[in-house]
Parts: sequence; structure tokens; C-alpha cells
Amino acid sequence: MSKPCLAITLGDPAGIGPEVIVRAWSEPAVYQACRPFVIGHPEILRRAITLVGSDASVHEIESPADAQPSADRIDCLRAGANDVLDVPPAAIDARAGQAAYVALIEAIELAQAGAIDALVTAPLHKAALDQAGHHYPGHTELLAERCGVRDFAMMLYLATGEHVHGPAGLGVAHVTLHMALRNVFAQLTSDAVLSKIELLRGMMLRLKGAEPRLGVAAINPHGGEEGLFGDEEQRIIRPAVERARASGVHVEGPFPTDTLMVRARDGEFDGVVAMYHDQGHIALKLLGMDRAVNVTLGLPIVRTSVAHGTAFDIAWQGRARPTSMLEAIRVAAILCRERTDRTGA
Amino acid sequence: MSKPCLAITLGDPAGIGPEVIVRAWSEPAVYQACRPFVIGHPEILRRAITLVGSDASVHEIESPADAQPSADRIDCLRAGANDVLDVPPAAIDARAGQAAYVALIEAIELAQAGAIDALVTAPLHKAALDQAGHHYPGHTELLAERCGVRDFAMMLYLATGEHVHGPAGLGVAHVTLHMALRNVFAQLTSDAVLSKIELLRGMMLRLKGAEPRLGVAAINPHGGEEGLFGDEEQRIIRPAVERARASGVHVEGPFPTDTLMVRARDGEFDGVVAMYHDQGHIALKLLGMDRAVNVTLGLPIVRTSVAHGTAFDIAWQGRARPTSMLEAIRVAAILCRERTDRTGA
Repeated sequence: MSKPCLAITLGDPAGIGPEVIVRAWSEPAVYQACRPFVIGHPEILRRAITLVGSDASVHEIESPADAQPSADRIDCLRAGANDVLDVPPAAIDARAGQAAYVALIEAIELAQAGAIDALVTAPLHKAALDQAGHHYPGHTELLAERCGVRDFAMMLYLATGEHVHGPAGLGVAHVTLHMALRNVFAQLTSDAVLSKIELLRGMMLRLKGAEPRLGVAAINPHGGEEGLFGDEEQRIIRPAVERARASGVHVEGPFPTDTLMVRARDGEFDGVVAMYHDQGHIALKLLGMDRAVNVTLGLPIVRTSVAHGTAFDIAWQGRARPTSMLEAIRVAAILCRERTDRTGA
Repeated sequence: MSKPCLAITLGDPAGIGPEVIVRAWSEPAVYQACRPFVIGHPEILRRAITLVGSDASVHEIESPADAQPSADRIDCLRAGANDVLDVPPAAIDARAGQAAYVALIEAIELAQAGAIDALVTAPLHKAALDQAGHHYPGHTELLAERCGVRDFAMMLYLATGEHVHGPAGLGVAHVTLHMALRNVFAQLTSDAVLSKIELLRGMMLRLKGAEPRLGVAAINPHGGEEGLFGDEEQRIIRPAVERARASGVHVEGPFPTDTLMVRARDGEFDGVVAMYHDQGHIALKLLGMDRAVNVTLGLPIVRTSVAHGTAFDIAWQGRARPTSMLEAIRVAAILCRERTDRTGA
């Protein structure tokens, strides 16, 4: 079995994407577990190499098949126009937004064509993307649209470690994501909750290699106190949990979220379904902001991402740490292997 | 200066309150820092002593002035009817709800009369309280009503420790508390946010002994992304922060809550103002569920509480740990000392 081929998009060139990619390269695990290459402008990558003082050099390739990465060779498939080279560090700029967009589209097309096994994304900046004329709240929604998928979810994932005790780590899938909290209630249906339970079950089954145990979060304090503090638990969430259980999923809830997250951390659950963005993000960022990985559920392609943003406050200062990028690459490689095993390839 | 006198209410007799009080007594710090006694039924306390195998005995007192606690003496001011003795462990029972209520009212009256310096509460069970005819979502609202206070807040507090790095610990005050999440938006006003900022500032000033640094949470994901994911930040929260800053409070925000909580944990803020129950509770329970203390802000009396509930799943099995009760007593004693210093008594 050959190593899975991973495309890593450079993200917004003004952010910390380029430097965390270069820093990640110094970790031999990166090219031992898979065959990664970068999609973006090679000159930006060279600047990042100079910034962090890496010994590696950029090797331009014509196609993913040419990628032969090593400690001193970062393969790069050129994407985007040269005008991105004039974008100053840490600036919101349409040219940088366009560069991030072009690299992402290229990666998606390669994945759809079967030329790569997985896609790992460095962060883009939503405002820059917007200024470039691409109006998406984030990578996840853009990927889903491009893949023609309506049933998808964003999962934050932390591998087993200091603060996560379950054997398969902890994945938190979100029923709703990038929207005003007050608009969540209109989106919260039993079908939506059930769909995210099933998506999370599928992904954690792949990562665990066994049936995962899932917990579903309530949306109201104290889990609604039997209807006293809201009825979404009784009306929407509990019926979805019961339908999932009836189909054999190992899932419980809804539970008050504050204690559910503690139970999940302590290993009682492999996955949690959160009802809204901050419910999952507050917990996982506290448990391991540096190590967290973003995995898109429901896509026909494997896609992971760092869980941080462009971090303009520290971009191009050589201070950004590659922990999340390393984890994103590692998890993508695991998911590729698992997929290959499953299809018997 | 004599030691501050603390009344500890027994809480719901069917829950873990009695056993955590008795277990806390084995810690000499409890009666070295203050002069505590229990309000409740002495026979329940005796049962808890038997349960945990303590050497202490219950000493009934007539008034707080008689309390002379020691390792082998737990002073108890009798409150409540004998029918509570027939309540089975871990059961929701109106008689237990009534016993918790009566002890709490007695404690409030003693505090208002100046006979005690502070009030520490063991958990009550809301459904039992309800069945006894007292309809409150929790202690906090009942205390506020009894004290005639409209401007109050529930603060969760964690002292400096393994997971909280600031020198004064971390206090999280909640703008809204026991209500359906969908109803939070109607309660969220600039005045409410400003009031909680000021209450939190006052409490953390007492606990820190210096001007505290406060951070205010956004309510929407990514802090609303400049209005794209909700406008409460711009319309309600930011103006409140600006008014507080104009009056000299060291406060910043609103910030995206997931990263704000990490920054607060790492010591950048002494206090955080959360917009709703779970926003604060998810973070503080993950950081130290066992050690967390509940402090009521805005009351004319000092009141702290354990941050856990009646825990019927483990009640009267001798397994409950007194960590939160010990912290609640310790923090109450600090607040009494500070109050005495301030008034020059």
C-alpha cells in the first residue's frame, strides 16, 4: 500500500498558514505517514522558510504524482496570481483572499478527480475571502457547496492526551455552526440533530475502529429542567436521540452540557453532538486549543484543518506553533488509511 | 478580631449536602479560619456522621453565639420538622424540600440580623423545593428576593490552582441564568451587562485586593464577526463595556467566548462576564468541577455555595467529596475578613 497523498492548502498568505506548514515539515512523522505537498504560491512558501530558518527548499511540481517530500524538500503545486506577493503580512486583502480561494478550489478538484487522498487546509480569513467576492462563513460551507453536499457537519477533534482520556480521543460535531445564536432555534430540528448524530457516529467509528459511545448536549441550562427552562430537549433533541438509538447507535442524552463535557473529557463518551458553535468550541479549546483539529463530516472527500484562524496578531513573526497542523495531517492520514482498508484497495 | 461566624445550611437532606459538610469538618482549616455551624435537623447530621465514619458528634446550640466548633464537635442550630427523618435517601420529596427551605430562611434572617457573618449553602433540589410550594429556579433567586435585591448575579469562582493561573483565581458572572436559551435575548440589555460588569468588578476587587482585569464574552460565534453572525455585540455588549471603561473599570471585550475562556484560564483576566448559564458553566466545570464555588453578587450578605447539585446518583453512599464545600467555606471566610477590614471593625 502506498502512502496516502495529501494536499495542504496554504490558506491566507497574510496569516500564519505558511509558517505552520513549514514548521510542521521539520517533523519526520509528516512525510513518514503520508505524502504531502502544498498548494499555493511557492514564493510565499519560500518567505515562510526564510522566516522560520528552515533548511528545506521548495520544489515545484506539475502534479500530485510528482510529490516526493522529505525533510529538506517541500513540494509545491503553484496556484494563484503573483499579485499576492505584494500583500503585507497580517493584512485583510482581497488578493490574499483570492489566493486562498484558488488554492482551495484546486485542492477540491484534485480530490474529486481522485488525484489526492485527502485535503488539509491552513486557515483563511473570512473578510479577505469576502473582499475577493466569495461569500462563505468558512471553509466548511464552501467545501459542502462544491461537493454538492447538503448534509454535513463541522467536527472538532482532540486525540487522546493530557486532557482527553477516551481511547479514541474526543470528537464534537455541531448541529448549527456559523450563525447568530438567536437564529439557532429555527435551524434546530429533530432531523438535523439525527443527521449530525449519524455523521458523528460514522466518523468516530472510523477513528475508533469500534462502535463509538456518543453523548448529545442539551441546549438549555440544566438540560431544560424538564421543560421549565425551555422545551427543545423534549420536543426536538430527545426524539432524535431515540430514533438514533432505535437504529442501533450507541447514543445517550440530551444531557446538561456543562457536566456532559466533563464526562466526555473523562472518557465516558467518544463523541458529543453540540447544538451550536460555542457549546462545542468553549469545551474543546479549553481542553486543547493547540492540538484541536477540524474535520468536515459528510463530504465525499477526506478533509481536515487546523482549528485556529489566521492569527494576524502573531502572523509572520515566526512565533506560530504547528501543533494543530501536525494533528490535522496526522488525522487526515489515519482517515485515508482507514478508507483504503475499508474499500480493500 | 474574632473569627467570622458562618452558617452552613444542610440543603436537601436526601442529597449529598449532609455528608459533604461532615467530611469537610475533618479539615482543620474549616474551624481555624472561621467559626462555622450547621442549620438543619441534627438527626440528619448524625446519620451523615455515621455514614462517613466520622469521630465528630453533633452539639445542638441555641444561637450562633454558642458555636464552638472543633474536629470532634459539629454545632447545629435545629431547623425544620421531624417528618424529614422519614425521607428516603436520594428521593425527591416535599418534606426534604421544605427542610431545605426552612434552614435557608433561618440563615438569611440570622444574616440580616447580623448574628452571622456569612452563609454557606449545601445544595437543594429544585423539584423538591417546588413540591414544598416554593417556586424558585434556585438559591440565588430566592436569596435575592428575600434580601429585596433586584440587581444580583451568580458568579462561579475557581481559586488559583492547577488549571487556573491568575493570581486571584477566576470568577465568571452570568448576565442571565436560569432560563431557556431562546429567552436570553429579551433579557440582554446594555444596562444588564453593565450591572454584571460592576458586580463582578466589586467581588473580584475584594478577592484580589487590587483592581481586577475583566473580560466580557460575546454571545455569538466568533464574537459576531462584525455583525455577520448577530449584532448583540455591537448593539448591546460593546456599549456596556465602553460605559464601564469610562467609569474606570479595567474591562475589555466583547471577545469570542471560546478563546476568551482560554485567555482567562491562562491568567490574562481575573473575571469574565458570561451572557448565559452554559457559557460560563461549560468553562468553569471543565477547569475544576470539584473545586468550583458559587458566590452570589449584589446581596447585602456574604453567601457562597457549593457549585454542585444534590447528586442523587451518589447520595448517602459515602462517596461524595467535600472539595467544593471546603472551597465555599474558605471563600466565605475570606470575604468576611475583607469586609471586616474594609469597615475597620
